[in-house]
Amino acid sequence: MKNRITSLFAIKYPIVQGGMVWASGWKLASAVSNAGGLGVIGAGSMYPEVLRENILKCQKATDKPFAVNVPMLYPNLNEIMNIIVELGVEIVFTSAGNPKIWTTFFKEKGIVVVHVVSSVKFAIKAESAGVDAIVAEGFEAGGHNGRDETTTLTLIPSVKEKIKIPLIAAGGIATGDAMLATMVLGADAVQVGSRFVACTEASSHPSFKNKIVSIGEGDTHLTLKELAPVRLIKNKFYKDIQSLYENGTNINELKNLLGRGRAKKGMFEGDMDEGELEIGQVASMIHDIKSAKDIINDMMREFEEAKKRVVTI
Amino acid sequence: MKNRITSLFAIKYPIVQGGMVWASGWKLASAVSNAGGLGVIGAGSMYPEVLRENILKCQKATDKPFAVNVPMLYPNLNEIMNIIVELGVEIVFTSAGNPKIWTTFFKEKGIVVVHVVSSVKFAIKAESAGVDAIVAEGFEAGGHNGRDETTTLTLIPSVKEKIKIPLIAAGGIATGDAMLATMVLGADAVQVGSRFVACTEASSHPSFKNKIVSIGEGDTHLTLKELAPVRLIKNKFYKDIQSLYENGTNINELKNLLGRGRAKKGMFEGDMDEGELEIGQVASMIHDIKSAKDIINDMMREFEEAKKRVVTI
Repeated sequence: MKNRITSLFAIKYPIVQGGMVWASGWKLASAVSNAGGLGVIGAGSMYPEVLRENILKCQKATDKPFAVNVPMLYPNLNEIMNIIVELGVEIVFTSAGNPKIWTTFFKEKGIVVVHVVSSVKFAIKAESAGVDAIVAEGFEAGGHNGRDETTTLTLIPSVKEKIKIPLIAAGGIATGDAMLATMVLGADAVQVGSRFVACTEASSHPSFKNKIVSIGEGDTHLTLKELAPVRLIKNKFYKDIQSLYENGTNINELKNLLGRGRAKKGMFEGDMDEGELEIGQVASMIHDIKSAKDIINDMMREFEEAKKRVVTI
Repeated sequence: MKNRITSLFAIKYPIVQGGMVWASGWKLASAVSNAGGLGVIGAGSMYPEVLRENILKCQKATDKPFAVNVPMLYPNLNEIMNIIVELGVEIVFTSAGNPKIWTTFFKEKGIVVVHVVSSVKFAIKAESAGVDAIVAEGFEAGGHNGRDETTTLTLIPSVKEKIKIPLIAAGGIATGDAMLATMVLGADAVQVGSRFVACTEASSHPSFKNKIVSIGEGDTHLTLKELAPVRLIKNKFYKDIQSLYENGTNINELKNLLGRGRAKKGMFEGDMDEGELEIGQVASMIHDIKSAKDIINDMMREFEEAKKRVVTI
């Protein structure tokens, strides 16, 4: 498939794996890249030296392009960015911050820069900062989320109207049908998160993968909006948060309950009660744990079947 | 276009107009039906005698099928339902309540029954209650909204997996592109609300129509979740609600601020500051006020163009 995104990244299929915390190490990223998508190492849950190790291992495990995703709230940001450059990573995804600060730095070194946004306003800002492409992520997405709560179905065409650079749709996409739907709305490619958390090669805990497969529609909710909005599975920890809200709470109380390491405890260590379990609404469409290769091949088969079906609509 | 929905309703195009309060009188419903879609009179904002008058006028204005939408929270429900039967309305949309109670009543009289849901759970309940079709409405929709906050992109395929009867997608659909996108996900037709509020024949106030055309992505928000979740334009009234939340509020205070007649004041009487302005996120894709005929013809043209584009993706 030849289009603006497959050309930009030099990949076979317009499927980008999300850089999810505690799931997206070198194993997942290299497996996705080897299967023809764009694998992405999620630096958000990695110390600088852990990221270094993951990049080096990923380079050994694949000769295909892969990327690193960096949430710009990261405390050791300079160190992280220098490792990326030093090790010759060719594509960087930035999120959660101002794209102006780092885009020039990377572009001067010939690195492709993609910025993740959740609103038209920031899509326009990212385009004028000079990024090569944009990921526009809707309200249904897992993990941290935009404040405007715009869904993928409305966000993609609204962004498409205002920007000219390539556009990657994210949020609610786990099937070839949803991939085609968002491309009908104007996306050049899709970023797939939740589906790749329930993947053999993801570093997420097996209990978390099984949980994703078992939940249905209505089992996630966007919460903690006073801190930073995050979509969680409705487990015990989530219910504890809601109890605080019901009794009238404040930011300090919420911060205390959240504490430190909740996400690691849930998604990486497998504590399904006390851990923070970030996943998208589309978990309702994920019914099995399978390899990155099977995920990509199945999505592409569904995508081609959906294209054929369209003619008969 | 021949499919399960166009056959069920005996209409030309698989486009159903939403039964929006203060917008969907006989003028809009008959214009939509005359243009080949399914016009729907919204009983939610009508006294029984006003509904009677609207049905009679609609019957004079079109010889095509049209429907009546009844939110089952309505106080004079028996009276409303009897008027519908007495005047020979052929299609009824029920929402906001248990479909078991009225489905048999209508089906025994040969009336087609469609139920509006916002979750898989209620879709399954509606199917077992014997309704003929389901409208599944996502989080991005305007007006009153489901508690699970599931977006159209995830709701439609999730419902489709669980039910066999025809499925109409709603929430975030104002263009032929979005229509095709939701049909790729498994919908047989679409219900279009916001686009038809900014329509020449809608009874909504001209100031409200102009407001819809002027707003962009991020200008609506789902609020008043403690009463009944409703998506509003962020005007003065909305900001007054948010001020209450910021200072820690309770249900009685919210009820007092809401008061009575806020929706009428805004959407029908045109008070853009103090009125309740219900509209979907997709207002960001609505740039003009036009006739029902133009809305339907433009959507069908975009839909056919999008189908042709798919082949080249």
